[in-house]
Amino acid sequence: MSTERHYEREFVRTFFTSPTAVKGEEDSAKMIRSAAGLRGMQAPDVWVPDNEDATAPNMRDEGARNIVEVVAEHGADFPGEIHPRVVWHRDSPTTRYRGFQHMLAIADPEGGAVEHIDGFVIPEVGDIDDWKKADEFITIVENEHGLEEGSLSMSVIVESGEAELAMGDLREEMGRPSNNLERLFLLVDGEVDYTKDMRAMTPTGELPPWPELRHNTSRGASAAGLIAVDGPYDDIRDVEGYHERMVDNRAKGMLGIWSLTPRQVVEANTSPLPPESGRWLLELGDEEIDLTEEDGRQVYEGDAVGLEETDDGYVLRVGSDEQQLDEGGLREELLDMAAYVPSMDDIVNSMEEFEAAKEAGRGAISMTRATTVVVDGVEVEISQDRMWDEATYQAAQTPIALFQDVYEHRPDQHEELEEMYGADVVERAMSVGN
Amino acid sequence: MSTERHYEREFVRTFFTSPTAVKGEEDSAKMIRSAAGLRGMQAPDVWVPDNEDATAPNMRDEGARNIVEVVAEHGADFPGEIHPRVVWHRDSPTTRYRGFQHMLAIADPEGGAVEHIDGFVIPEVGDIDDWKKADEFITIVENEHGLEEGSLSMSVIVESGEAELAMGDLREEMGRPSNNLERLFLLVDGEVDYTKDMRAMTPTGELPPWPELRHNTSRGASAAGLIAVDGPYDDIRDVEGYHERMVDNRAKGMLGIWSLTPRQVVEANTSPLPPESGRWLLELGDEEIDLTEEDGRQVYEGDAVGLEETDDGYVLRVGSDEQQLDEGGLREELLDMAAYVPSMDDIVNSMEEFEAAKEAGRGAISMTRATTVVVDGVEVEISQDRMWDEATYQAAQTPIALFQDVYEHRPDQHEELEEMYGADVVERAMSVGN
Amino acid sequence: MSTERHYEREFVRTFFTSPTAVKGEEDSAKMIRSAAGLRGMQAPDVWVPDNEDATAPNMRDEGARNIVEVVAEHGADFPGEIHPRVVWHRDSPTTRYRGFQHMLAIADPEGGAVEHIDGFVIPEVGDIDDWKKADEFITIVENEHGLEEGSLSMSVIVESGEAELAMGDLREEMGRPSNNLERLFLLVDGEVDYTKDMRAMTPTGELPPWPELRHNTSRGASAAGLIAVDGPYDDIRDVEGYHERMVDNRAKGMLGIWSLTPRQVVEANTSPLPPESGRWLLELGDEEIDLTEEDGRQVYEGDAVGLEETDDGYVLRVGSDEQQLDEGGLREELLDMAAYVPSMDDIVNSMEEFEAAKEAGRGAISMTRATTVVVDGVEVEISQDRMWDEATYQAAQTPIALFQDVYEHRPDQHEELEEMYGADVVERAMSVGN
Repeated sequence: MSTERHYEREFVRTFFTSPTAVKGEEDSAKMIRSAAGLRGMQAPDVWVPDNEDATAPNMRDEGARNIVEVVAEHGADFPGEIHPRVVWHRDSPTTRYRGFQHMLAIADPEGGAVEHIDGFVIPEVGDIDDWKKADEFITIVENEHGLEEGSLSMSVIVESGEAELAMGDLREEMGRPSNNLERLFLLVDGEVDYTKDMRAMTPTGELPPWPELRHNTSRGASAAGLIAVDGPYDDIRDVEGYHERMVDNRAKGMLGIWSLTPRQVVEANTSPLPPESGRWLLELGDEEIDLTEEDGRQVYEGDAVGLEETDDGYVLRVGSDEQQLDEGGLREELLDMAAYVPSMDDIVNSMEEFEAAKEAGRGAISMTRATTVVVDGVEVEISQDRMWDEATYQAAQTPIALFQDVYEHRPDQHEELEEMYGADVVERAMSVGN
Repeated sequence: MSTERHYEREFVRTFFTSPTAVKGEEDSAKMIRSAAGLRGMQAPDVWVPDNEDATAPNMRDEGARNIVEVVAEHGADFPGEIHPRVVWHRDSPTTRYRGFQHMLAIADPEGGAVEHIDGFVIPEVGDIDDWKKADEFITIVENEHGLEEGSLSMSVIVESGEAELAMGDLREEMGRPSNNLERLFLLVDGEVDYTKDMRAMTPTGELPPWPELRHNTSRGASAAGLIAVDGPYDDIRDVEGYHERMVDNRAKGMLGIWSLTPRQVVEANTSPLPPESGRWLLELGDEEIDLTEEDGRQVYEGDAVGLEETDDGYVLRVGSDEQQLDEGGLREELLDMAAYVPSMDDIVNSMEEFEAAKEAGRGAISMTRATTVVVDGVEVEISQDRMWDEATYQAAQTPIALFQDVYEHRPDQHEELEEMYGADVVERAMSVGN
Repeated sequence: MSTERHYEREFVRTFFTSPTAVKGEEDSAKMIRSAAGLRGMQAPDVWVPDNEDATAPNMRDEGARNIVEVVAEHGADFPGEIHPRVVWHRDSPTTRYRGFQHMLAIADPEGGAVEHIDGFVIPEVGDIDDWKKADEFITIVENEHGLEEGSLSMSVIVESGEAELAMGDLREEMGRPSNNLERLFLLVDGEVDYTKDMRAMTPTGELPPWPELRHNTSRGASAAGLIAVDGPYDDIRDVEGYHERMVDNRAKGMLGIWSLTPRQVVEANTSPLPPESGRWLLELGDEEIDLTEEDGRQVYEGDAVGLEETDDGYVLRVGSDEQQLDEGGLREELLDMAAYVPSMDDIVNSMEEFEAAKEAGRGAISMTRATTVVVDGVEVEISQDRMWDEATYQAAQTPIALFQDVYEHRPDQHEELEEMYGADVVERAMSVGN
């Protein structure tokens, strides 16, 4: 990436917002202090003391004071980065000026908070010129308070059509001499306000899925060397839905997500990490069905697939579709349906194997994975071959690179990670790919 | 929105094209007169006397004369806006010049039509410089005929890759001093010609769904303060398909659609309005199944879901997937599956409740909706909680804002709207959110 | 298209890469010679002797020499175009300089290869300025070797976010006086490296589908007068998956695909051509079920749809959804579900019919297609009407234009095409639409 990054983390799994002031003085201090005390998997990669939506409009000055107080006291011990969100709106100079004042107050060295603050989050940005206004205010904040220019990062919430379009111009605009947009860090989708700005509606009031917005955010981050983060998942009890959203996001290159509760933080911190153990599954159309391991064999237990041995071969049924097959044909069909989800250990093994082959002068090797699938009591041996070359190797590296980034920057999660994977796997995962 | 809009309507539900000249003089006059006579739900928000595709190529001069005659006579009484479509093509200066001549003719004050004409529709536009050529011709038309510069709006049909890309530049280009692109009004997708221009094919010859084009049109409209409209739905007998398309469009922020027949106009005029009565449904994967109200309980009548009470709890079956659950678990599963489609009355109620809370100094309140769901005779009480804050409130406002825009600009639909919702709901809907 | 194309083919079905040097001298010569010997449906429209990924890194100088030798000897007889791929990387000046040197070597007239070489393929391009660097090197190659400026085409592999964004600027940039970007030919998606660059992950390591990338590539090609080609389909045994991918691509306007084996070349060469014979199918949600022709009737043989004649009409069951219908209603439902996939002969017939109507002064005609559908022994006559106007005609023309382009440029496929369609259909297909 040619753009020089001004931030340490290469990956951000979790973007956790907490109110800075709600009802009364005591209450507010309690909520923001409780966020500051999170550790381990419950602590986010990026903590956002939120002085915008999560804080009552008439209490935002108090919110800014609470940020200073709590971050000054607890910031040094907080394991993630700290990026307060201030108010901003592309259509309101009043709001923008208040956001500027809050940033000035929060970053005042007298308060003792700024040394623990990594940057600011600017919501409701508009087109690229609006992003530049926020960047300029941060430059002035840095200058007024004797901080190095560009030392505070800037993250934005993309919640308008014009901000979505602006992400296509970042790479070009970030190089210009009269801005400090190299301070950009996270591009965060904000689907509630985006839905409003796009005037979109669904019958039940649920948010539309916005696949194109998420693609464009991920692409914008990739092109400009930034990090893409998906917006909040409102239904905080729907853990399965949150997981599905994260799987969908990762297929778009968006590895981080907004978290509204410490429980969501745990889910979002662990979800992008490779699983502890691998598993086989059958892919039937869009559905994926896990197979059950029994004595090293993979048993299918549903009734969507049926298999029967006959005098002259096999009858395989998938849904209501039956076909007569010989042994080779049967194996090919099952091979097509079967897929393997590799564990952390599997990925590390494959990478080590490829690295050894490369060392020995071979640019491509075949990796084999074999098992016995059992359907209706009939056993079928299958064996997957996959050619690994440099490109395969590098694509496989993404989850490992994420793991390494987490391990390096989050010592407070070491214990949990070693418990999850075993110390040996962790050690090997930290040394491949370098 | 910083761009100043030159048009009255904030929402356009229907874009209805009618031929201006087909076979003979008499016939032509009849078709265009019949469109001019539409009223109430049968009358579109935007009527487009079409002097391009719907009119025979060799009869377009006559078509232009018919527009002048019919609009002069009936324009004052027509309840929607009137935007004739002229010929245009990004690759043909001949066609562009003819379009210019037709606009000059139609807008000639001597004909008496122009005072009822709100703007022109330009099809087959190319990149942004091509849009500027059309804009310049309209400026000349205004100047020649003593009209105020910018008083005629310009809508375009997006039916090429370069026009799709141009929508990303509108916000920037509309501010430039040497054009009057602030006259832009509707961005209309034209999927038949777009498919041709993209050289796309489907086995049966049906149009591809083009989700990305529709997203980009909606986003382009949002970023530049314009209105996005989807293209024609060819299979005019397929009412269900037309409805599904509109639901899909609304989730993209595209609230208007092209209508080819007065029957489609009725469908498209009513579809984006909130329903008269709310209803519960179960969401099973991508499928939505309406529940049937019986004595205030919501009864499921299909066989995709099964429920049985056992000695130690419940067995819930969804498809072929069974799970053993206790009462709490059962309630949670059903809550996840159940969804409520609010009526106009429901939305107005929620907005009023939130407005009262805001008045009382509360920024967020919880809204509860409870019911009894019955599956296989087993009754389960469920209760949905949803947190409403300013953002929720504003997103919920879109259908109400649309309703208010309709009610304000379409007095000819008042009677039908009051019949549909009741005068009380209409009155309350007109006063929330202001 | 206003941009002047520097290439002959209007359509490219197949982009076939073959290694130019792998293990030893003998082996390498064998592999590249074998590709040069492909003919007929096994020979690609574009052959890419690959001196990047498919060739061992330490053997690329030898690879360049092999290209010169084999192309000089066999290039004149190869039926497709020849576009060697050299090394390139947006982030590495070393790699870019090596790519330049390889191009200089391959295009050296002394080697005798350049007269058979149509252009170069540049992988791993970045933003538009990076594309210009490659263009400039090709300009220097042309100048050094006394070739006409712009005579070598340039194709790129889009495998980064910034390259995806660059495709939105091509139309504008291609006109600039200080580049020769008019030499651009193919925009090829490279999903393996794109996935890496976007840092995307899927549980099983399969490639994400990237629908937005493919849309943007297709649109970029359309807007700039280029040709879009999809990337490699890794699972080379999965013929059905390769076919589904191509159907999906064609609905996006991307008619060509990368082929990794001669078997994939055959699939990809034939897939976009209209079928030899038409067929009826039923569309049930997203599923399409072929009907079986029996004595001119179309028989449904599955159990997802059921039909029963009762005393007062019919009961039609679709899945678990039953409805009571009269004869008209039944016909309408079946008409909605039924779709016809036209054969080459059908398309040519329709086009001829429309051309005759146009000749006779009619701008729109109705085309009817009728059949008898049989479900559970009950026969229902259905009849589809479709209005054809100039736009329908032009959209229907895409597969015929592709066929004509193939027939004109690939005499080596004439025999296979005539065997497939019959000489009469081929002759008529070559004369419609002109």
